[in-house]
Amino acid sequence: MSMSGARESRRRRLVVIGGDAAGMSAASQARRLKGPGELEIVAFERGHFTSYSACGIPYWVGGDVSGRDELIARTPEEHRARGIDLRLRTEVTEIDVAGGRVRAREVDSGAESWTPYDQLVIATGARPVRPDLPGADAPGVHGVQTLDDGEALLGTLARTRGRRAVVVGAGYIGVEMAEALIKRGYEVTVVNRAEEPMSTLDPDMGRLVREAMEGMGITMVNGAAVTGLLTGDDGRVRAVATRDAEFPADVVVLGIGVRPQTSLAAAAGLPLGSHGGLLTDRAMRVRGHENIWAGGDCVEVLDLVSGQERHVALGTHANKHGQVIGTNVGGGYATFPGVVGTAVSKVCDLEIARTGLREKDARRAGLRFSAVTIESTSRAGYYPGASPMTVKMLAEHRTGRLLGVQIVGREGAGKRVDIAAVALTAGMTVEQMTALDLGYAPPFSPVWDPVLVAARKAVAKVRESGV
Amino acid sequence: MSMSGARESRRRRLVVIGGDAAGMSAASQARRLKGPGELEIVAFERGHFTSYSACGIPYWVGGDVSGRDELIARTPEEHRARGIDLRLRTEVTEIDVAGGRVRAREVDSGAESWTPYDQLVIATGARPVRPDLPGADAPGVHGVQTLDDGEALLGTLARTRGRRAVVVGAGYIGVEMAEALIKRGYEVTVVNRAEEPMSTLDPDMGRLVREAMEGMGITMVNGAAVTGLLTGDDGRVRAVATRDAEFPADVVVLGIGVRPQTSLAAAAGLPLGSHGGLLTDRAMRVRGHENIWAGGDCVEVLDLVSGQERHVALGTHANKHGQVIGTNVGGGYATFPGVVGTAVSKVCDLEIARTGLREKDARRAGLRFSAVTIESTSRAGYYPGASPMTVKMLAEHRTGRLLGVQIVGREGAGKRVDIAAVALTAGMTVEQMTALDLGYAPPFSPVWDPVLVAARKAVAKVRESGV
Repeated sequence: MSMSGARESRRRRLVVIGGDAAGMSAASQARRLKGPGELEIVAFERGHFTSYSACGIPYWVGGDVSGRDELIARTPEEHRARGIDLRLRTEVTEIDVAGGRVRAREVDSGAESWTPYDQLVIATGARPVRPDLPGADAPGVHGVQTLDDGEALLGTLARTRGRRAVVVGAGYIGVEMAEALIKRGYEVTVVNRAEEPMSTLDPDMGRLVREAMEGMGITMVNGAAVTGLLTGDDGRVRAVATRDAEFPADVVVLGIGVRPQTSLAAAAGLPLGSHGGLLTDRAMRVRGHENIWAGGDCVEVLDLVSGQERHVALGTHANKHGQVIGTNVGGGYATFPGVVGTAVSKVCDLEIARTGLREKDARRAGLRFSAVTIESTSRAGYYPGASPMTVKMLAEHRTGRLLGVQIVGREGAGKRVDIAAVALTAGMTVEQMTALDLGYAPPFSPVWDPVLVAARKAVAKVRESGV
Repeated sequence: MSMSGARESRRRRLVVIGGDAAGMSAASQARRLKGPGELEIVAFERGHFTSYSACGIPYWVGGDVSGRDELIARTPEEHRARGIDLRLRTEVTEIDVAGGRVRAREVDSGAESWTPYDQLVIATGARPVRPDLPGADAPGVHGVQTLDDGEALLGTLARTRGRRAVVVGAGYIGVEMAEALIKRGYEVTVVNRAEEPMSTLDPDMGRLVREAMEGMGITMVNGAAVTGLLTGDDGRVRAVATRDAEFPADVVVLGIGVRPQTSLAAAAGLPLGSHGGLLTDRAMRVRGHENIWAGGDCVEVLDLVSGQERHVALGTHANKHGQVIGTNVGGGYATFPGVVGTAVSKVCDLEIARTGLREKDARRAGLRFSAVTIESTSRAGYYPGASPMTVKMLAEHRTGRLLGVQIVGREGAGKRVDIAAVALTAGMTVEQMTALDLGYAPPFSPVWDPVLVAARKAVAKVRESGV
């Protein structure tokens, strides 16, 4: 056996399934810690792109971002230059856990082969929920999950003469797409099953979002389940139907949410949670499997506030997971302790943020709590640009522990949720929060930051509860 | 004795010295908890105004705020309507601790009288440092501590034909006044004794502020102690002199900082700390005095990071102190646990923030640490309006505990300091911070928030220290 053969035989192989945030962060971090002589890295990606910001697609569609390539953090060539054997347009079709290998198929040629692994990273992401309805696959109906989706939608927009757009779903993708289509000059209707948009908020806060969106000229149809997508003689979508009405549409965007893409993992017998995501330990190792890791939109994560698992598809978590996995695979030690459920989004100049538990989450977790809502301003009331913001806060009875915060406002409102995100992580009580030393100057905040005003009111309400 | 006389004799009296944020917050909160039948409240204020935002004066001078009255949160009439016996233009000249009374003098008539108290609140604020230099009291030389100061400065600006302004001092008042004068069309020179502006930051971060201010057309003279204020034949200021140069000035603004105004307390034998501020317990009771309370700019506060007392003159603390004192005087229970030293300010579109310890503070507190500095952007790099920001972070060796954060950037940079402020309060390590679930969406943050990028680098640097 030659020297190089001997070296080769000692080299370990890391196989990564999925070339976006979690997978390629894991690969890159592992590569940082172990050179090509120690660790071979093979990454399979069934699409054309790697390491891109899916969260940026609405801004690309809306014209805030000039082109697709701006959303790509690292190209396939850059990954390869770092010694990662990246196989694009190659889909993994089976994980053989007992045999320690994966089967992959080249999408274009159909050729299949097995690749053994010493360590495996599953980063298969999420799939958009597609309604099981007639017409859901008709031309003119688009998801916005991948760069390919974004290109397809932009193609439709370029070709379509009509200016009526219907967005199905009013979660963060739905409201961001409503903004994008308004910016492109469309008449936008948002059809939403829940009673108010942004069901990641309590309905009383969702109502503020609805009112603001209506003020922007968006037609909001709530409490309306879509029953079908109607097509014209040309086979293209022409309307969205609910039980009670039809909404004419030259283009339809589906933003109904996503689910973990774990069919591969399920077929391999890997453990899935109640939300359909892979279950891992804190090091992001798939439970019960020493050499299989998972991260990003295909896993469930621990909610540090409720103590229960949940599914959160968000690029910022995916990047952290990848970093943790890559560190562990590379021989270091890192953990992902969990989330508190922070999310921020905007529709035109309206900022929407939340962290922790909604009222129904808290009840589901068996918690007794008080909820308060306050109105304040983003800056000192007398300072130019001071804009109103509403803060809702939930605090547990007896302990006074902060349970969650929701914010709806204008410029300067959204990122204030970070104050609550850190306080939740630290397990602070609302009483402790009232003393927080937050940045104050008239251009930045009233003398009592809105989050502190909410905390003071929450303290009083918890006390009044007498529990 | 009549019924009303009997009731009168059981009523307790709270005396408040100082009618701004701390004093009037204390009075208002005490009044909320105890009606006039139980508690008489007498408040002495030597000026014309109550409960105003001194922090807003630069924006009033700069024209962002249209008038003085906008800065007044609550007028004397509003306080009186709530049953507070407010005596304006009345200066307390002596506290007789043994006798439980204060002597007050009406400024206009000179009439003096004694007022007994059951509870006393000292909220005498801070006094601006005035250089002990010839010409410091010449016409055209102004402080900006009170509304009266602001009116006097605006009067000078209205009367002055020349357009050359010199600001002495480059702390937050100095840089805010530089902005105000630029906005009014002045040629602004800032003369500053320290090597860089904003000495509440480390010099390497202060340099970024200096470069930005120079880019705005402000002449920055650093490392230059003022030796005198030169006057013309008319007795008005005409230039600011340093050892090496003279800077012509049609108006001079002093922003050299403030000291606790505690001569009254000192004369009464009340305990002062090394910064000249009153020392209190956590309930804001003056140490060793059961019925004397103090809050706002005249007290020292516990720095929760260094464990040492410091003086921080800031309206947000004054309001909290007043709230705590009023609650305790009113028979409730509240505490002010201390500060972490958060401050945020801006000069034109440059945002400047800090919390926790600077390098020299950490050394003074006996701490070993690593310091890292990173550059990132306020939004996703591809999102319009993403602006560069620099974050410096200090972390303790061995424990990895966060010690401080400094931020210099543009829109969206400043209030990010709150993330660190909460983390400091919670005693988080930089390793814990890397997992923080902060709000992410492209219009709000890169996928790794700049504070997280700094935390990751700090983790690595602390590890490398090997200590």
